[in-house]
Amino acid sequence: MNTPSTSLPTAVRIVEVGARDGLQNEKTVIPAATKIELIDRLSATGLRAIEATSFVSPKWVPQLADASEVFSGITRKPSVSYPVLVPNLQGYERARAVGADEIAVFTAASEAFNRKNINASIDESIERFMPVLDRARADGVKVRGYVSTVLGCPYQGEVPVADVVRVAKRLHELGCYEISLGDTIGIGTPGKARAMLRAVAERVPMSALAVHFHDTRGQALANILACLEEGVAVVDSSVSGTGGCPYAKGATGNVATEDVVYMLEGMGIATGVDLTALIATGLWLSSQLGRTTSSRVARASQ
Amino acid sequence: MNTPSTSLPTAVRIVEVGARDGLQNEKTVIPAATKIELIDRLSATGLRAIEATSFVSPKWVPQLADASEVFSGITRKPSVSYPVLVPNLQGYERARAVGADEIAVFTAASEAFNRKNINASIDESIERFMPVLDRARADGVKVRGYVSTVLGCPYQGEVPVADVVRVAKRLHELGCYEISLGDTIGIGTPGKARAMLRAVAERVPMSALAVHFHDTRGQALANILACLEEGVAVVDSSVSGTGGCPYAKGATGNVATEDVVYMLEGMGIATGVDLTALIATGLWLSSQLGRTTSSRVARASQ
Repeated sequence: MNTPSTSLPTAVRIVEVGARDGLQNEKTVIPAATKIELIDRLSATGLRAIEATSFVSPKWVPQLADASEVFSGITRKPSVSYPVLVPNLQGYERARAVGADEIAVFTAASEAFNRKNINASIDESIERFMPVLDRARADGVKVRGYVSTVLGCPYQGEVPVADVVRVAKRLHELGCYEISLGDTIGIGTPGKARAMLRAVAERVPMSALAVHFHDTRGQALANILACLEEGVAVVDSSVSGTGGCPYAKGATGNVATEDVVYMLEGMGIATGVDLTALIATGLWLSSQLGRTTSSRVARASQ
Repeated sequence: MNTPSTSLPTAVRIVEVGARDGLQNEKTVIPAATKIELIDRLSATGLRAIEATSFVSPKWVPQLADASEVFSGITRKPSVSYPVLVPNLQGYERARAVGADEIAVFTAASEAFNRKNINASIDESIERFMPVLDRARADGVKVRGYVSTVLGCPYQGEVPVADVVRVAKRLHELGCYEISLGDTIGIGTPGKARAMLRAVAERVPMSALAVHFHDTRGQALANILACLEEGVAVVDSSVSGTGGCPYAKGATGNVATEDVVYMLEGMGIATGVDLTALIATGLWLSSQLGRTTSSRVARASQ
């Protein structure tokens, strides 16, 4: 599973997840005004998909209790999509009340991870958001699906590729227009990433797949390269590499969008993103968070 | 130039350059005893090639003025090669006096870089170490050649691939058994790395080529992956990612050996290196240097 099966895409759509997946895992409390400024600055860089926030219960994720305020406060550009995470009908109603027209639902490919996090099996977790999918379909709301722990799980270790395929296929059948395959603990290497993606792409069209790598062990860009070689053309990333990894002390979070854009543009793959503006936004965000940027491209630019 | 031309190697030889290229660029002054312990610990991890030191003039690189003491102090394992950097006959004599049986010579693919660093053209820089190559040949001493700035230069910017090819070919003709192609400023991306390597491999056998990436912009592992896909089977790296980059403030140095080994072993490519022992050695070194390790695999293990 170490050799590519196709040629590279000529353009990649980046899904910027810093404002949600990133900030959700930061320890610093960030004012809603800062989150709004972050999202508006991101939309000015040319990014076309910016995950804005999450309408999970504030009890679970207090960092995102201001979801409605944030979403209402941003200046939405017609060319940009602003998906929001939604765990259940309550969250869906809250998201719709402030005008969200794209949502994301999530589950894991690991039974142990689902059990531990939401006390449900994979199938039960999917059952739980079925009402959300039904409502979204009726309302004409686009739904993105996240599958986490696709290359390993902090609780059960190995995650069979067959489980990833089954969950991704199910989400696609249920109407998710795109399935983001996440290496939540950043444990994968290019051969495994390639093999996993290839197996999923046998059952779900590649055009409906995205990859989502954490850079915990520094493998994210190499894994993305391997997946690009398989034909994937949607990559999740987080400006300045925001987000820790709760399962590995001292580890970085999401791969930094700046580093992804640098690689892609260097390879002649169009992203539509103004790297200079993106670097400036990431450095501004890092100063707001009181930490050093995790983007090595940003560090090298200083 | 974005698609691979061959299948991956089944094994990779890692050339550990931390004790020389790494420490030479660290600001901390390190006692010879620590360097000796580092090299001996590295040879216990299964590494088969450990660059030990440099016999450049102490006037140029005071950090390595203890080259003779270090080389005399290490416990050499028969299965391990210990190349040392040698800039001229004086350095060669010093290296030979303490028993070195493999040396490395260096030049750059950039005219501007050579001019600025050693006030010589590329051809003149090669002329200068011709006497060293002659002596090495007569003495049966193996010679490795470094070509730096293969993907860009801090002074002239772009470096034509034709210049890299010409210099690499010349070093090979002059008897270097292996040519290490170095992205000194860590500016390259996978497509360019692949194209450069492929062009060189048309004139020098791939089995005589190595790649040497700095992780300044986080691209090193992705670049290595692209080069592995071209068939390269020798990778330079530095334990704990030692070494700064004098041309980019705040940037990291060589790619960390731990992260390379993690990727390769994860891909089923044998390195012969005990990753656990290597991580321990890198963390020990970082504590000696009073800094955090640059290896993300090491950080995730803590």
